[in-house]
Amino acid sequence: MAVNAEKEARRKAEIIGSACALFASRGYRETTMQDIAEAAGYSKGGVYYYFASKEEILFEIHERFINEGLRRIREVEARYGDPEERFVKLIETHLEIIRDYKDDITLFYRYMDALSADNYERVKRKRDEYERVFADTVREGVGRGVFETEHVKLGTMFILGSLNSMHTWYNPQGDYDVRELARIVTGLWLNGLKKRNP
Amino acid sequence: MAVNAEKEARRKAEIIGSACALFASRGYRETTMQDIAEAAGYSKGGVYYYFASKEEILFEIHERFINEGLRRIREVEARYGDPEERFVKLIETHLEIIRDYKDDITLFYRYMDALSADNYERVKRKRDEYERVFADTVREGVGRGVFETEHVKLGTMFILGSLNSMHTWYNPQGDYDVRELARIVTGLWLNGLKKRNP
Repeated sequence: MAVNAEKEARRKAEIIGSACALFASRGYRETTMQDIAEAAGYSKGGVYYYFASKEEILFEIHERFINEGLRRIREVEARYGDPEERFVKLIETHLEIIRDYKDDITLFYRYMDALSADNYERVKRKRDEYERVFADTVREGVGRGVFETEHVKLGTMFILGSLNSMHTWYNPQGDYDVRELARIVTGLWLNGLKKRNP
Repeated sequence: MAVNAEKEARRKAEIIGSACALFASRGYRETTMQDIAEAAGYSKGGVYYYFASKEEILFEIHERFINEGLRRIREVEARYGDPEERFVKLIETHLEIIRDYKDDITLFYRYMDALSADNYERVKRKRDEYERVFADTVREGVGRGVFETEHVKLGTMFILGSLNSMHTWYNPQGDYDVRELARIVTGLWLNGLKKRNP
Protein backbone atom coordinates (compact mmCIF):
# COMPACT_ATOMS: atom_id res chain seq x y z
CA MET A 1 0.00 0.00 0.00
CA ALA A 2 1.37 3.44 -0.88
CA VAL A 3 2.02 5.83 2.00
CA ASN A 4 -0.99 7.96 1.08
CA ALA A 5 -3.37 5.04 0.78
CA GLU A 6 -2.15 3.79 4.14
CA LYS A 7 -2.71 7.17 5.75
CA GLU A 8 -6.17 7.38 4.20
CA ALA A 9 -7.10 3.90 5.47
CA ARG A 10 -5.90 4.79 8.96
CA ARG A 11 -7.93 8.03 8.96
CA LYS A 12 -11.06 6.29 7.76
CA ALA A 13 -10.63 3.68 10.49
CA GLU A 14 -10.26 6.44 13.10
CA ILE A 15 -13.45 8.14 11.96
CA ILE A 16 -15.36 4.85 11.85
CA GLY A 17 -14.11 4.00 15.35
CA SER A 18 -15.35 7.33 16.74
CA ALA A 19 -18.66 6.95 14.91
CA CYS A 20 -19.17 3.43 16.33
CA ALA A 21 -18.61 4.65 19.88
CA LEU A 22 -21.15 7.47 19.39
CA PHE A 23 -23.74 5.25 17.65
CA ALA A 24 -23.47 2.79 20.54
CA SER A 25 -23.70 5.36 23.33
CA ARG A 26 -26.26 7.86 22.00
CA GLY A 27 -27.84 6.18 18.96
CA TYR A 28 -27.30 6.41 15.20
CA ARG A 29 -30.07 8.94 14.52
CA GLU A 30 -29.06 11.13 17.46
CA THR A 31 -25.45 11.42 16.21
CA THR A 32 -24.48 14.13 13.71
CA MET A 33 -21.49 14.33 11.35
CA GLN A 34 -20.37 17.29 13.50
CA ASP A 35 -20.37 15.02 16.60
CA ILE A 36 -18.35 12.41 14.74
CA ALA A 37 -15.84 15.00 13.54
CA GLU A 38 -15.35 16.37 17.07
CA ALA A 39 -14.93 12.92 18.60
CA ALA A 40 -12.40 11.90 15.95
CA GLY A 41 -10.50 15.20 16.16
CA TYR A 42 -11.29 16.26 12.59
CA SER A 43 -13.13 19.18 11.06
CA LYS A 44 -16.58 18.45 9.68
CA GLY A 45 -15.13 18.99 6.19
CA GLY A 46 -12.40 16.49 7.00
CA VAL A 47 -15.00 13.82 7.77
CA TYR A 48 -16.94 14.65 4.59
CA TYR A 49 -13.72 14.25 2.63
CA TYR A 50 -13.75 10.54 3.53
CA PHE A 51 -17.49 9.84 3.83
CA ALA A 52 -20.28 11.41 1.78
CA SER A 53 -22.79 10.92 4.61
CA LYS A 54 -23.42 9.35 8.00
CA GLU A 55 -25.17 6.51 6.22
CA GLU A 56 -21.96 5.87 4.26
CA ILE A 57 -20.17 5.33 7.60
CA LEU A 58 -22.85 2.82 8.65
CA PHE A 59 -22.34 1.03 5.35
CA GLU A 60 -18.57 0.97 5.90
CA ILE A 61 -19.03 -0.67 9.32
CA HIS A 62 -20.68 -3.58 7.50
CA GLU A 63 -18.02 -3.56 4.76
CA ARG A 64 -15.26 -4.02 7.33
CA PHE A 65 -16.61 -7.21 8.87
CA ILE A 66 -18.23 -8.69 5.77
CA ASN A 67 -15.09 -8.23 3.65
CA GLU A 68 -12.87 -9.76 6.29
CA GLY A 69 -15.45 -12.55 6.80
CA LEU A 70 -15.61 -13.30 3.07
CA ARG A 71 -11.83 -13.28 2.82
CA ARG A 72 -11.51 -15.82 5.63
CA ILE A 73 -14.29 -18.19 4.52
CA ARG A 74 -13.11 -18.16 0.90
CA GLU A 75 -9.70 -19.19 2.18
CA VAL A 76 -11.37 -22.11 3.98
CA GLU A 77 -13.35 -22.91 0.84
CA ALA A 78 -10.17 -23.02 -1.26
CA ARG A 79 -8.23 -25.10 1.26
CA TYR A 80 -10.63 -27.88 2.28
CA GLY A 81 -11.93 -30.18 -0.46
CA ASP A 82 -13.81 -32.55 1.82
CA PRO A 83 -17.27 -31.07 2.51
CA GLU A 84 -17.49 -32.30 6.10
CA GLU A 85 -14.04 -30.97 6.98
CA ARG A 86 -14.86 -27.70 5.21
CA PHE A 87 -18.17 -27.43 7.10
CA VAL A 88 -16.36 -27.79 10.44
CA LYS A 89 -13.80 -25.13 9.47
CA LEU A 90 -16.46 -22.75 8.12
CA ILE A 91 -18.33 -22.82 11.41
CA GLU A 92 -15.18 -22.21 13.42
CA THR A 93 -14.20 -19.33 11.13
CA HIS A 94 -17.67 -17.79 11.27
CA LEU A 95 -17.72 -17.85 15.09
CA GLU A 96 -14.24 -16.27 15.13
CA ILE A 97 -15.55 -13.45 12.94
CA ILE A 98 -18.42 -12.89 15.37
CA ARG A 99 -15.95 -12.82 18.27
CA ASP A 100 -13.65 -10.37 16.46
CA TYR A 101 -16.40 -8.01 15.25
CA LYS A 102 -19.11 -8.49 17.89
CA ASP A 103 -19.65 -4.77 18.62
CA ASP A 104 -19.68 -3.76 14.95
CA ILE A 105 -22.11 -6.58 14.11
CA THR A 106 -24.48 -5.67 16.94
CA LEU A 107 -24.40 -2.00 15.93
CA PHE A 108 -24.95 -2.78 12.28
CA TYR A 109 -27.98 -5.00 12.91
CA ARG A 110 -29.52 -2.38 15.18
CA TYR A 111 -29.37 0.35 12.55
CA MET A 112 -29.35 -1.47 9.21
CA ASP A 113 -32.88 -0.19 8.46
CA ALA A 114 -31.28 3.26 8.08
CA LEU A 115 -29.32 2.14 4.98
CA SER A 116 -30.26 3.53 1.57
CA ALA A 117 -31.85 1.10 -0.90
CA ASP A 118 -28.63 1.06 -2.98
CA ASN A 119 -26.36 0.32 -0.05
CA TYR A 120 -28.81 -2.27 1.27
CA GLU A 121 -28.58 -3.99 -2.12
CA ARG A 122 -24.76 -4.00 -1.91
CA VAL A 123 -24.93 -5.42 1.62
CA LYS A 124 -27.35 -8.09 0.50
CA ARG A 125 -25.13 -9.21 -2.40
CA LYS A 126 -22.21 -9.84 -0.06
CA ARG A 127 -24.42 -11.63 2.46
CA ASP A 128 -25.75 -13.82 -0.36
CA GLU A 129 -22.19 -14.69 -1.35
CA TYR A 130 -21.37 -15.55 2.26
CA GLU A 131 -24.40 -17.82 2.44
CA ARG A 132 -23.45 -19.34 -0.94
CA VAL A 133 -20.16 -20.69 0.46
CA PHE A 134 -22.05 -22.49 3.26
CA ALA A 135 -24.86 -23.73 0.98
CA ASP A 136 -22.37 -25.10 -1.59
CA THR A 137 -20.61 -27.05 1.14
CA VAL A 138 -23.87 -28.60 2.34
CA ARG A 139 -24.94 -29.30 -1.25
CA GLU A 140 -21.63 -30.96 -2.06
CA GLY A 141 -21.92 -33.10 1.06
CA VAL A 142 -25.39 -34.18 -0.01
CA GLY A 143 -24.12 -34.87 -3.53
CA ARG A 144 -21.35 -37.10 -2.20
CA GLY A 145 -23.85 -39.00 -0.03
CA VAL A 146 -22.22 -37.88 3.21
CA PHE A 147 -24.85 -35.30 4.24
CA GLU A 148 -28.61 -35.51 4.20
CA THR A 149 -31.17 -32.70 4.38
CA GLU A 150 -34.59 -32.08 2.91
CA HIS A 151 -33.69 -28.59 1.74
CA VAL A 152 -30.16 -27.26 1.23
CA LYS A 153 -31.01 -23.54 1.04
CA LEU A 154 -33.43 -23.43 3.97
CA GLY A 155 -31.22 -25.75 6.00
CA THR A 156 -28.27 -23.41 5.41
CA MET A 157 -30.34 -20.41 6.55
CA PHE A 158 -31.23 -22.17 9.79
CA ILE A 159 -27.57 -23.13 10.30
CA LEU A 160 -26.32 -19.57 9.74
CA GLY A 161 -29.17 -18.27 11.93
CA SER A 162 -28.02 -20.40 14.84
CA LEU A 163 -24.42 -19.24 14.44
CA ASN A 164 -25.34 -15.56 14.00
CA SER A 165 -27.47 -15.55 17.14
CA MET A 166 -24.24 -15.94 19.12
CA HIS A 167 -23.48 -12.23 18.80
CA THR A 168 -26.45 -11.49 21.12
CA TRP A 169 -25.15 -13.55 24.05
CA TYR A 170 -21.45 -14.26 23.53
CA ASN A 171 -19.17 -12.71 26.12
CA PRO A 172 -15.52 -12.61 24.99
CA GLN A 173 -14.48 -12.47 28.67
CA GLY A 174 -16.86 -15.31 29.56
CA ASP A 175 -16.50 -19.00 30.28
CA TYR A 176 -16.35 -20.33 26.73
CA ASP A 177 -13.90 -19.75 24.02
CA VAL A 178 -14.94 -19.76 20.41
CA ARG A 179 -13.30 -23.12 19.61
CA GLU A 180 -15.31 -24.80 22.36
CA LEU A 181 -18.56 -23.18 21.18
CA ALA A 182 -17.72 -24.18 17.61
CA ARG A 183 -17.17 -27.77 18.69
CA ILE A 184 -20.53 -27.90 20.52
CA VAL A 185 -22.60 -26.39 17.72
CA THR A 186 -20.76 -28.30 14.98
CA GLY A 187 -21.43 -31.55 16.84
CA LEU A 188 -25.12 -30.73 16.94
CA TRP A 189 -25.38 -29.74 13.29
CA LEU A 190 -23.43 -32.77 12.09
CA ASN A 191 -24.80 -35.47 14.39
CA GLY A 192 -28.14 -34.11 15.56
CA LEU A 193 -29.58 -34.41 19.04
CA LYS A 194 -30.72 -37.99 18.62
CA LYS A 195 -28.21 -40.46 19.91
CA ARG A 196 -26.51 -42.37 17.12
CA ASN A 197 -26.50 -46.14 17.61
CA PRO A 198 -28.48 -45.94 20.87
CA MET B 1 -64.00 -10.71 31.36
CA ALA B 2 -66.21 -7.91 32.66
CA VAL B 3 -67.49 -5.40 30.09
CA ASN B 4 -65.13 -2.70 31.36
CA ALA B 5 -62.05 -4.93 31.32
CA GLU B 6 -62.95 -6.00 27.80
CA LYS B 7 -63.31 -2.41 26.66
CA GLU B 8 -60.01 -1.52 28.30
CA ALA B 9 -58.19 -4.42 26.61
CA ARG B 10 -59.65 -3.42 23.23
CA ARG B 11 -58.54 0.20 23.69
CA LYS B 12 -55.04 -0.80 24.76
CA ALA B 13 -54.80 -3.04 21.70
CA GLU B 14 -55.93 -0.15 19.44
CA ILE B 15 -53.28 2.16 20.87
CA ILE B 16 -50.57 -0.50 20.59
CA GLY B 17 -51.61 -1.16 16.98
CA SER B 18 -51.31 2.53 16.07
CA ALA B 19 -48.00 2.79 17.90
CA CYS B 20 -46.59 -0.25 16.04
CA ALA B 21 -47.53 1.26 12.67
CA LEU B 22 -45.80 4.55 13.59
CA PHE B 23 -42.69 2.88 15.07
CA ALA B 24 -42.35 0.83 11.87
CA SER B 25 -42.84 3.74 9.46
CA ARG B 26 -41.02 6.63 11.16
CA GLY B 27 -39.03 5.02 13.98
CA TYR B 28 -39.52 4.59 17.71
CA ARG B 29 -37.51 7.64 18.79
CA GLU B 30 -39.11 9.86 16.15
CA THR B 31 -42.65 9.03 17.36
CA THR B 32 -44.26 11.04 20.19
CA MET B 33 -47.15 10.11 22.48
CA GLN B 34 -49.06 12.93 20.73
CA ASP B 35 -48.51 11.19 17.35
CA ILE B 36 -49.73 7.90 18.80
CA ALA B 37 -52.83 9.55 20.29
CA GLU B 38 -53.70 11.20 16.96
CA ALA B 39 -53.22 8.00 14.97
CA ALA B 40 -55.35 6.00 17.40
CA GLY B 41 -58.07 8.68 17.59
CA TYR B 42 -57.51 9.43 21.29
CA SER B 43 -56.51 12.51 23.25
CA LYS B 44 -52.96 12.51 24.60
CA GLY B 45 -54.47 12.18 28.10
CA GLY B 46 -56.45 9.17 26.89
CA VAL B 47 -53.24 7.42 25.84
CA TYR B 48 -51.53 8.29 29.13
CA TYR B 49 -54.50 6.80 30.96
CA TYR B 50 -53.51 3.40 29.57
CA PHE B 51 -49.71 3.75 29.25
CA ALA B 52 -47.41 5.70 31.56
CA SER B 53 -44.93 6.30 28.72
CA LYS B 54 -43.93 5.41 25.17
CA GLU B 55 -41.47 2.92 26.59
CA GLU B 56 -44.37 1.20 28.38
CA ILE B 57 -45.99 0.66 24.96
CA LEU B 58 -42.76 -0.90 23.64
CA PHE B 59 -42.72 -3.17 26.67
CA GLU B 60 -46.37 -4.17 26.03
CA ILE B 61 -45.52 -5.16 22.44
CA HIS B 62 -43.14 -7.74 23.89
CA GLU B 63 -45.67 -8.80 26.56
CA ARG B 64 -48.23 -9.63 23.90
CA PHE B 65 -46.12 -12.12 21.98
CA ILE B 66 -44.10 -13.51 24.89
CA ASN B 67 -47.21 -14.19 26.99
CA GLU B 68 -49.00 -15.89 24.12
CA GLY B 69 -45.79 -17.80 23.31
CA LEU B 70 -45.35 -18.95 26.91
CA ARG B 71 -49.00 -20.00 27.09
CA ARG B 72 -48.67 -22.14 23.96
CA ILE B 73 -45.35 -23.80 24.79
CA ARG B 74 -46.43 -24.56 28.37
CA GLU B 75 -49.46 -26.29 26.90
CA VAL B 76 -47.10 -28.40 24.75
CA GLU B 77 -44.93 -29.06 27.80
CA ALA B 78 -47.93 -30.28 29.80
CA ARG B 79 -49.31 -32.44 26.99
CA TYR B 80 -46.27 -34.33 25.66
CA GLY B 81 -44.38 -36.55 28.09
CA ASP B 82 -41.96 -38.00 25.56
CA PRO B 83 -39.02 -35.57 25.13
CA GLU B 84 -38.55 -36.22 21.41
CA GLU B 85 -42.24 -35.74 20.65
CA ARG B 86 -42.28 -32.63 22.85
CA PHE B 87 -39.19 -31.25 21.08
CA VAL B 88 -40.91 -31.65 17.70
CA LYS B 89 -44.06 -29.90 18.96
CA LEU B 90 -42.12 -27.10 20.66
CA ILE B 91 -40.34 -26.23 17.42
CA GLU B 92 -43.59 -26.22 15.45
CA THR B 93 -45.25 -24.04 18.09
CA HIS B 94 -42.32 -21.62 18.21
CA LEU B 95 -42.32 -21.16 14.43
CA GLU B 96 -46.08 -20.57 14.53
CA ILE B 97 -45.55 -17.82 17.11
CA ILE B 98 -42.97 -16.19 14.82
CA ARG B 99 -45.43 -16.40 11.91
CA ASP B 100 -48.27 -14.90 13.98
CA TYR B 101 -46.21 -12.09 15.56
CA LYS B 102 -43.53 -11.48 12.92
CA ASP B 103 -44.01 -7.68 12.70
CA ASP B 104 -44.18 -7.20 16.48
CA ILE B 105 -41.09 -9.36 16.98
CA THR B 106 -39.09 -7.47 14.33
CA LEU B 107 -40.12 -4.12 15.81
CA PHE B 108 -39.33 -5.20 19.33
CA TYR B 109 -35.83 -6.44 18.48
CA ARG B 110 -35.08 -3.24 16.59
CA TYR B 111 -35.89 -1.01 19.57
CA MET B 112 -35.37 -3.19 22.63
CA ASP B 113 -32.29 -1.16 23.62
CA ALA B 114 -34.75 1.68 24.42
CA LEU B 115 -36.29 -0.32 27.31
CA SER B 116 -35.69 0.81 30.90
CA ALA B 117 -33.47 -1.42 33.04
CA ASP B 118 -36.53 -2.59 35.03
CA ASN B 119 -38.56 -3.51 32.00
CA TYR B 120 -35.55 -5.15 30.38
CA GLU B 121 -35.25 -7.32 33.51
CA ARG B 122 -38.93 -8.31 33.24
CA VAL B 123 -38.46 -9.16 29.54
CA LYS B 124 -35.40 -11.21 30.36
CA ARG B 125 -37.17 -13.25 33.04
CA LYS B 126 -39.86 -14.31 30.57
CA ARG B 127 -37.30 -15.13 27.89
CA ASP B 128 -35.38 -17.23 30.43
CA GLU B 129 -38.58 -19.13 31.24
CA TYR B 130 -39.21 -19.69 27.52
CA GLU B 131 -35.67 -21.03 27.09
CA ARG B 132 -36.11 -23.19 30.22
CA VAL B 133 -38.95 -25.16 28.59
CA PHE B 134 -36.71 -26.00 25.61
CA ALA B 135 -33.64 -26.75 27.75
CA ASP B 136 -35.62 -29.06 30.07
CA THR B 137 -36.84 -31.02 27.08
CA VAL B 138 -33.31 -31.47 25.75
CA ARG B 139 -32.03 -32.34 29.24
CA GLU B 140 -34.76 -34.91 29.75
CA GLY B 141 -33.98 -36.49 26.37
CA VAL B 142 -30.32 -36.72 27.36
CA GLY B 143 -31.30 -38.19 30.74
CA ARG B 144 -33.38 -40.88 29.07
CA GLY B 145 -30.54 -41.76 26.72
CA VAL B 146 -32.45 -40.65 23.61
CA PHE B 147 -30.62 -37.36 22.99
CA GLU B 148 -26.93 -36.57 23.07
CA THR B 149 -25.21 -33.19 23.31
CA GLU B 150 -22.06 -31.88 24.91
CA HIS B 151 -23.82 -28.93 26.52
CA VAL B 152 -27.58 -28.67 27.13
CA LYS B 153 -27.75 -24.93 27.82
CA LEU B 154 -25.51 -23.77 24.98
CA GLY B 155 -27.06 -26.32 22.63
CA THR B 156 -30.51 -24.94 23.47
CA MET B 157 -29.33 -21.38 22.78
CA PHE B 158 -28.05 -22.39 19.35
CA ILE B 159 -31.34 -24.21 18.64
CA LEU B 160 -33.48 -21.22 19.66
CA GLY B 161 -31.13 -18.93 17.72
CA SER B 162 -31.71 -20.88 14.52
CA LEU B 163 -35.49 -20.79 15.00
CA ASN B 164 -35.57 -17.09 15.94
CA SER B 165 -33.58 -16.10 12.87
CA MET B 166 -36.63 -17.06 10.80
CA HIS B 167 -38.31 -13.75 11.60
CA THR B 168 -35.72 -11.96 9.46
CA TRP B 169 -36.48 -13.89 6.24
CA TYR B 170 -39.84 -15.63 6.60
CA ASN B 171 -42.50 -14.40 4.20
CA PRO B 172 -46.02 -15.45 5.27
CA GLN B 173 -47.11 -15.07 1.62
CA GLY B 174 -44.08 -17.04 0.42
CA ASP B 175 -43.47 -20.56 -0.81
CA TYR B 176 -43.18 -22.35 2.53
CA ASP B 177 -45.67 -22.81 5.25
CA VAL B 178 -44.59 -23.03 8.84
CA ARG B 179 -45.25 -26.76 9.18
CA GLU B 180 -42.93 -27.48 6.26
CA LEU B 181 -40.22 -25.22 7.69
CA ALA B 182 -40.68 -26.87 11.09
CA ARG B 183 -40.27 -30.31 9.52
CA ILE B 184 -37.04 -29.29 7.75
CA VAL B 185 -35.39 -27.67 10.78
CA THR B 186 -36.60 -30.35 13.21
CA GLY B 187 -35.14 -33.02 10.94
CA LEU B 188 -31.80 -31.25 11.00
CA TRP B 189 -31.74 -30.71 14.75
CA LEU B 190 -32.77 -34.29 15.51
CA ASN B 191 -30.78 -36.19 12.92
CA GLY B 192 -27.97 -33.83 11.99
CA LEU B 193 -26.56 -33.28 8.53
CA LYS B 194 -24.50 -36.46 8.50
CA LYS B 195 -26.29 -39.30 6.83
CA ARG B 196 -27.38 -41.96 9.30
CA ASN B 197 -26.38 -45.49 8.31
CA PRO B 198 -24.59 -44.36 5.14
